[in-house]
Amino acid sequence: MDNIKNYVQQNKERFINELIELLKIPSVSADSAYAQDVIDTANAVKISLEKAGCDLVEICETPGYPIVYGEKIIDRNLPTVLVYGHYDVQPPDPMELWTSPPFEPVIKTTDIHPEGAIFARGACDDKGQMYMHVKAFEYMIQNNCLPCNVKFMIEGEEEVGSKSLGWFVERNQEKLANDVILISDTGMISNQQPSITTGLRGLSYVEVEVTGPNRDLHSGLYGGAVANPINVLAKMIASLHDENNHITIPGFYDKVEELSAAERAEMAKAPFNLDNYKKALNIEDVYGETGYVTNERNSIRPTLDVNGIWGGYTGEGAKTVIASKAYAKISMRLVPNQDWEEITALFTKHFESIAPKAVKVKVTPHHGGQGYVTPIDSIGYQAASKAYTETFGVPAIPVRSGGSIPIVALFEKELKSKTIMMGFGLDSDAIHSPNEHFGVFNYLKGIETIPLFYKYFVELSKS
Amino acid sequence: MDNIKNYVQQNKERFINELIELLKIPSVSADSAYAQDVIDTANAVKISLEKAGCDLVEICETPGYPIVYGEKIIDRNLPTVLVYGHYDVQPPDPMELWTSPPFEPVIKTTDIHPEGAIFARGACDDKGQMYMHVKAFEYMIQNNCLPCNVKFMIEGEEEVGSKSLGWFVERNQEKLANDVILISDTGMISNQQPSITTGLRGLSYVEVEVTGPNRDLHSGLYGGAVANPINVLAKMIASLHDENNHITIPGFYDKVEELSAAERAEMAKAPFNLDNYKKALNIEDVYGETGYVTNERNSIRPTLDVNGIWGGYTGEGAKTVIASKAYAKISMRLVPNQDWEEITALFTKHFESIAPKAVKVKVTPHHGGQGYVTPIDSIGYQAASKAYTETFGVPAIPVRSGGSIPIVALFEKELKSKTIMMGFGLDSDAIHSPNEHFGVFNYLKGIETIPLFYKYFVELSKS
Repeated sequence: MDNIKNYVQQNKERFINELIELLKIPSVSADSAYAQDVIDTANAVKISLEKAGCDLVEICETPGYPIVYGEKIIDRNLPTVLVYGHYDVQPPDPMELWTSPPFEPVIKTTDIHPEGAIFARGACDDKGQMYMHVKAFEYMIQNNCLPCNVKFMIEGEEEVGSKSLGWFVERNQEKLANDVILISDTGMISNQQPSITTGLRGLSYVEVEVTGPNRDLHSGLYGGAVANPINVLAKMIASLHDENNHITIPGFYDKVEELSAAERAEMAKAPFNLDNYKKALNIEDVYGETGYVTNERNSIRPTLDVNGIWGGYTGEGAKTVIASKAYAKISMRLVPNQDWEEITALFTKHFESIAPKAVKVKVTPHHGGQGYVTPIDSIGYQAASKAYTETFGVPAIPVRSGGSIPIVALFEKELKSKTIMMGFGLDSDAIHSPNEHFGVFNYLKGIETIPLFYKYFVELSKS
Repeated sequence: MDNIKNYVQQNKERFINELIELLKIPSVSADSAYAQDVIDTANAVKISLEKAGCDLVEICETPGYPIVYGEKIIDRNLPTVLVYGHYDVQPPDPMELWTSPPFEPVIKTTDIHPEGAIFARGACDDKGQMYMHVKAFEYMIQNNCLPCNVKFMIEGEEEVGSKSLGWFVERNQEKLANDVILISDTGMISNQQPSITTGLRGLSYVEVEVTGPNRDLHSGLYGGAVANPINVLAKMIASLHDENNHITIPGFYDKVEELSAAERAEMAKAPFNLDNYKKALNIEDVYGETGYVTNERNSIRPTLDVNGIWGGYTGEGAKTVIASKAYAKISMRLVPNQDWEEITALFTKHFESIAPKAVKVKVTPHHGGQGYVTPIDSIGYQAASKAYTETFGVPAIPVRSGGSIPIVALFEKELKSKTIMMGFGLDSDAIHSPNEHFGVFNYLKGIETIPLFYKYFVELSKS
């Protein structure tokens, strides 16, 4: 299939420039200050799908940000691929750590990306990876080699829990009917060693508020005599892990699947160098749950992390104050079988129970989602594996990711089809961090690989 | 001494308006954005001392903000009173909790202040209490009843550790020579029960920084595998207190004086109602060191409080990130005999020692000061006691304050004289908090009481 290689070579400048235009719009779904930009991005995605060759493209209103739906139905008797992606991005802060403005994309070379990478918020997660599908689709239309029906569902709330997408999917099962769901919102091991994500962790994200006195107090006049909400919050957070870094919430581990020694041995085969890992992060040592190695701690084990904490005086200099309130954003990554709503309830009950009488505690669930594991013997997985093998020259390895795409479990429940996660990003792409980037190699390789998935998926469906 | 009563009555509108003008200048020493305002305030204080009748007033340059020095020498053979105060104020934030703008003073009545209180940052701490001395001095000049020499030393860095004042005092011992130092920067029990502060706590204020990975990380891909600086900081902070709320820093209590049962019984006589205390703060329960009551916990016992904490994503909504760094501002209130520099060193050593290998820790000392206890059998204390008794109609009770005026211990060391703390504020004045205020009654009562201190101090000095 050299056509696609040639097509990518002939059009790569345009492919890159179109993505750069999309990246210029700051579609930060977590911050309402960017609301208009999020909506503008939805419209830009709509136009790109129309240009690429969809027969029908709609901006579907929801209780939240709209979902862009597009389709190309060539024959009702042929299989249908549903492509999912998201056009919203993470907040860019801390801004001061970006070496170039997050919404002014530039191409810079790195050790891992000698041929250049596009630096911008959303470059990899997920505008870049979503747009690979639009361009791969354009190729199949332009070259009359689209072998089946395609539906696109691109949402704008993935970074804030996909609330409206759940609502939308439940109400549009027929419209969204498909044989396989294709997502590029994960990564692979390296540009030399492709991998396919077979597992995702679930997520429970909560915000906690600890209230002590009804006003900020002078720490001299009141220090030692009243509960300091920051000290109390620190104590409560600290108590959520024991000395082995096990999470102490009663019932938290009840439904966690324990992998067999064989499965763990299989996982251990994935190439991993601890020294390089520590060097890349500039840390003296890793840190985590006793009894598990790094690649298990961030994939098959549930975790609890504080994502943000604030309270009291955080300005320049010193202020001797006891704050009235302290806050934290806490998220738990869950593994298959852990129900996120049950875990959220267990957290809330436990957190309220450990609060001393001297403070009031409020727990507000933000959002969550179930974990997911996809079987590697499915037609979809086999098609993806053949596609990677052909374009990379080496077979893709199945890996469990520590990340979460909460909606995947819901897809299976509502749409009764498996999801294949064909990711082309790298851990080093700094998604959710300053200086997020996406390799030009990875972007073009994705566009080159995706049409092969369609080809093999249709072939394997026939047999 | 009805003259002073009458003088206050005749001039009270002017006294209040002059203070309001001073309060309009946002002299926040902790934030360099207010630098010009701090300097403008020094000049306003200079002018007020000249108008009140000082022979000599100088703006004394220092390594930091200037010190306003003024004097009226009537006879070298008479005693000299050195008045200390500060013209800088605490930062106003959180702004949203102020019911009127912090630098637009207004008079409002409260349950405790039926005749009205001036609401503004610095109203009580310390512009209002400092200005009482200027107006009391004006009275003594206008009525030819100043019985001794007076020196004023008003600084602009009290809220950030009085660094330059120490430098200034060490270099101007002759200029500042005096027989007693008078400060109004503390409070009293109530408008019906005056009290004189005989003890102050010392202070050690530090900022800590915990660094994990070299960049913010995706909490799904890295969660559970690397040390989260916020979780680690919470654990470290929590470990600074044991289950009895004793501070766990080795050596922290070595020099703490244990009061005798008799002394504690004496302290317990001060009127205090725990239910009212809890009601005023809207807390279900107090919280503190086992084995001590509230009035001991915030006065004769050392404490450790986090004054501010921040790290990770603190904006609207959710961000699944592991922050690269987490920070906290931590202050320790110390009791007499604890050396603040020694405590700062003990804290630093301990905090660094408890950090896991997976993070880097940096401790930056902000400032500090020694505690202080003044003898109640001194001429100065006796003069103050007589003055309060005369204007309030009831004897003033000696009390230990939990607050710190780090410079007081240095005064004794460098100037060899005792400090008398004639405070007229109330705990409910919300100093260091939103809606700081100072009762009109308290302000005028202070102006009325101070000249009596001069009268009795000179009388007792003769005998």
